Amino acid sequence: MSQTADKPKRERVPLNGVDTPNLFATINAVKGQPELGKFQFRATNHWLEGTHSEGRIESFSGAGSEHKHASTFKFDADHPAVLVGKDRGPTPVEFLLHGLAACLTAGIANIAAARGVKLTEVESKVEGDIDLRGILGISDEVRNGYEKIRVSFKIKGDAPPEKLREVVEQSRARSAVFDVLTNGVPVEITVDAG
Amino acid sequence: MSQTADKPKRERVPLNGVDTPNLFATINAVKGQPELGKFQFRATNHWLEGTHSEGRIESFSGAGSEHKHASTFKFDADHPAVLVGKDRGPTPVEFLLHGLAACLTAGIANIAAARGVKLTEVESKVEGDIDLRGILGISDEVRNGYEKIRVSFKIKGDAPPEKLREVVEQSRARSAVFDVLTNGVPVEITVDAG
Repeated sequence: MSQTADKPKRERVPLNGVDTPNLFATINAVKGQPELGKFQFRATNHWLEGTHSEGRIESFSGAGSEHKHASTFKFDADHPAVLVGKDRGPTPVEFLLHGLAACLTAGIANIAAARGVKLTEVESKVEGDIDLRGILGISDEVRNGYEKIRVSFKIKGDAPPEKLREVVEQSRARSAVFDVLTNGVPVEITVDAG
Repeated sequence: MSQTADKPKRERVPLNGVDTPNLFATINAVKGQPELGKFQFRATNHWLEGTHSEGRIESFSGAGSEHKHASTFKFDADHPAVLVGKDRGPTPVEFLLHGLAACLTAGIANIAAARGVKLTEVESKVEGDIDLRGILGISDEVRNGYEKIRVSFKIKGDAPPEKLREVVEQSRARSAVFDVLTNGVPVEITVDAG
């Protein structure tokens, strides 16, 4: 989830499956009416049993109105057997890695299109190192979450390697997920119990 | 993804679909051999077109060996039409909200089981506020990611409301995703271009 406000001299034509003219029209609309840029994304979750739950992603608000996704996206989450679950879905922490790769990749496609670069391949691998002594409550010196995340991209297109690297770098610089994961965000939890 | 190292006096029996004896055996195994707690989670991503990509979650390492998930989990990600995508999957930032709810919920089930609390319902909603002037490159004063995330839980079980609230609080205190989202994590990106 990342775009660019670059203003290339070149003609803006659809590229990489990106509707580049529409992308720039959207950027200009938000420039003119900043309140259109305010979005709220949402997820709901329903516990099933053990560490298994089902999440749904259905609606969001933004650009001044409410929106429904084209379909209701449903995702199971669970722990694997080695962590006393039944492996009916990825672990919650794995969804963070997926979100990071997807955000950087969407940004790469948009930015490449804005810069007139035709992409032929974007592949990535994400690894997150975590010491479970944190969440298991064994050591107070070990954090609960990942200690380090590494992303490796393989990118090909009709531009020199240096230009392709700049596209990845600009995507990083404007990635919502990269920002949240590296800088953190305030999270408030409320409970209705009874 | 959260457990507790509480040592209740009560007998440890399976509860809430949690194999509580196995959970404590796992905690004790990692206590005895800390290197068993070192895990690496992974995701791969393959760009399709525009902001649409497919992520896969297949393998991880931990407890001293390599593991494959019971199946290969595949997830599309995309932007909705209002953000110049085709809505073939949730946005990357929505996966963060799903991961947060799933992590806190898995922890709630484990901790309740460890404390002898039988749960009958755990539902949650997560909302994330984001001002897209950040990622659209319109304002350098607006961050790229969420400004604030709110989680609201509804929890029921055979314990008084105060005890149910304590279970949620302990899950928060030991949640891997809550830690990453609130405190951030170093992310390194490497690029193979050409």
